[in-house]
Amino acid sequence: MNAPVTELTAPLRPARRTEQVKSSMIREILKVTQRPDMISLAGGLPAPQTFPVEAMRAAFDAVLAHDGAGALQYSTTEGYTPLREWIAATETARGAPTHADEVLIVAGSQQALDLVGKAFAETGAPLLVEAPSYLGALQAFSVFEPVFRTIPTDEGGLIPQAIDAALARDARIAYVMPNFSNPTGRTLSVERRAALAQSARATGLWLVEDDPYGELWYRAAPPPSLRTWAPERTIRICSFSKVLAPGLRLGYVVAPRACIDLLVRLKQATDLHTATLTQRAAHRIVASPDFPAHLARVRARYAEQCRVMLAALEQSMPAGVEWTRPDGGMFVWLTLPAHVDATALLARAIERNVVYVPGEPFYALSPARNTLRLSFVTVPPAAIERGVRTLAELIQEQLRC
Amino acid sequence: MNAPVTELTAPLRPARRTEQVKSSMIREILKVTQRPDMISLAGGLPAPQTFPVEAMRAAFDAVLAHDGAGALQYSTTEGYTPLREWIAATETARGAPTHADEVLIVAGSQQALDLVGKAFAETGAPLLVEAPSYLGALQAFSVFEPVFRTIPTDEGGLIPQAIDAALARDARIAYVMPNFSNPTGRTLSVERRAALAQSARATGLWLVEDDPYGELWYRAAPPPSLRTWAPERTIRICSFSKVLAPGLRLGYVVAPRACIDLLVRLKQATDLHTATLTQRAAHRIVASPDFPAHLARVRARYAEQCRVMLAALEQSMPAGVEWTRPDGGMFVWLTLPAHVDATALLARAIERNVVYVPGEPFYALSPARNTLRLSFVTVPPAAIERGVRTLAELIQEQLRC
Repeated sequence: MNAPVTELTAPLRPARRTEQVKSSMIREILKVTQRPDMISLAGGLPAPQTFPVEAMRAAFDAVLAHDGAGALQYSTTEGYTPLREWIAATETARGAPTHADEVLIVAGSQQALDLVGKAFAETGAPLLVEAPSYLGALQAFSVFEPVFRTIPTDEGGLIPQAIDAALARDARIAYVMPNFSNPTGRTLSVERRAALAQSARATGLWLVEDDPYGELWYRAAPPPSLRTWAPERTIRICSFSKVLAPGLRLGYVVAPRACIDLLVRLKQATDLHTATLTQRAAHRIVASPDFPAHLARVRARYAEQCRVMLAALEQSMPAGVEWTRPDGGMFVWLTLPAHVDATALLARAIERNVVYVPGEPFYALSPARNTLRLSFVTVPPAAIERGVRTLAELIQEQLRC
Repeated sequence: MNAPVTELTAPLRPARRTEQVKSSMIREILKVTQRPDMISLAGGLPAPQTFPVEAMRAAFDAVLAHDGAGALQYSTTEGYTPLREWIAATETARGAPTHADEVLIVAGSQQALDLVGKAFAETGAPLLVEAPSYLGALQAFSVFEPVFRTIPTDEGGLIPQAIDAALARDARIAYVMPNFSNPTGRTLSVERRAALAQSARATGLWLVEDDPYGELWYRAAPPPSLRTWAPERTIRICSFSKVLAPGLRLGYVVAPRACIDLLVRLKQATDLHTATLTQRAAHRIVASPDFPAHLARVRARYAEQCRVMLAALEQSMPAGVEWTRPDGGMFVWLTLPAHVDATALLARAIERNVVYVPGEPFYALSPARNTLRLSFVTVPPAAIERGVRTLAELIQEQLRC
């Protein structure tokens, strides 16, 4: 049906900023995971079994039946008012008093990262991130050519006391993921949240609180958001990708009104607004009385998948390998003995039909190459056990070398 | 339900690039148009009567019924393959042989402008635009801090011979809207398209061909796309906003493979991908045998609305006022006598319940302040006639001054 590819291309002259944006290592890895015999512990995809397909059918149909023309027309950049009100009420109920005017609807939290980068990442100026940090955020920000500086972390996540005050004064924003972090699965304690807010206040720093996984807790909800501690200087980013479905591309930002106004102007220049129909359909689902039970089912599934992976790690990993024990989210983070290079090991894992994401791309600066990220979300329990066992054997072989 | 607004805001320290992005004048004007007694000739909204609401209901339902989980999962940045194939086949049928790999699906053509700006607008380097040009493109590009330089235009649109060769060699891209342009309604002739392609080839310039209105022709399809003349250096941007519905936020880019690869990397960092469900539903509609008849209905409606406005202008405008006679699209462009300032006139028009968009914001450099844009798309014929008459009276009064 299609004509052959035109190979004719005039020489491209891209802008300098594009040199910062490499194709994601994860993207390349995900291509390998398409092979049917592959056990993928690499993915960041939510479990499709949790998608509320029938509720979606009903919601899209109801919106189109009741006000089809309105749902298909251009709408305001800020987003659909009832959805913004629902978000404001949810935030308020969790201890951070919020007005709908402090909410911006975006096309997934990745777009929020792009807008925050556009708004605050100054070319050549420092920008604080955790070490390790979410790869997608590093990609989104790097287009705007900041100089990444890292906040040291330990088993409790970032260490507020380790933030250099002079650096914090120079940096405009610090990007952090306090709940069930990607890639580590770690959660910041109440004490560290309070200390981080205090440090931000003392130095004029704004906090970008990325929280795509906060709803995916196993036993108890995580501590109150960073925004609760420092509402006047926190830009909170949330997503419907994990609690509803990622294919909708729907997320939101909660921040002081002046910051939302700036982000709205930038979003207007970026894509005018987020899809009207999608916002209205999603609002029907999250505002429905069935939504809490849906969330409970998602949490129970993720908790069980995590339990299987932690048990498998316990059973098969050799001494010298350490891993996180998440209270929620989608990821476990492994630290191998110092001389084992997880990036180099990947090719051999793939030969044995197991794939994971090496820790390296999650570091803005000097990577700890003996780290890797495992996801347990979409893999059947027996395959998790088999995959972890294969990985353990490989690491064991490395230790013998 | 919501808490009062937290007025507490720490001082924002935005990046320098944000100084370029003002809130759009159109956005401010559109707020006024909400008043029920207002005749808005300002809007750029397509006519909601043309939205295929029932086909949308059927399409969303069918997609969710057949592969709900797939349609709600993350998908590739490039876009849904059958939709890319349909676009490639359409382009090929119109004389520009195209492979699906040369197509990128985006969240409306505004996102394409953002990605092109990210990819090619170098800070401090020249970027060529028409005078006047599409306001949304100027906004999208300005975030990336290029130095706008303009291509002179006359009643036939941009004048290829007037492009300075040295400037074209310095500029990376020239942004043009060859069909039923926003704001002028003008269409570039075959001869000028060929000359523009030749000039681009001679100077190494890439052409960004923005074509959101090409399908909205009244009597005959516009000349073949710029991409037909210079496929190796044209980035063609199209939208489903006018032929389906803007609330979906769906558009696409057709360009050489190397350029698509670059835009894909940037889109990945910007929003991962465009909504899976929306792409699949839209594909069902555009690939259906009913789609050509739908397009014919949209064209007939727009042609009739345009006819009413042109007749009203003919009947009531005083001598010395000139306007374009579009062969398609949504806009008529008025040139008033040189001393009449359309921006200043707007407040008085609003007092008389008529609103339009002054020409000023469409100019990257030195605006022709005696110009304005009228849209005829969503306004009932009697209101078009009343609105144009009121405007004519106002201009007449100015001429008497």
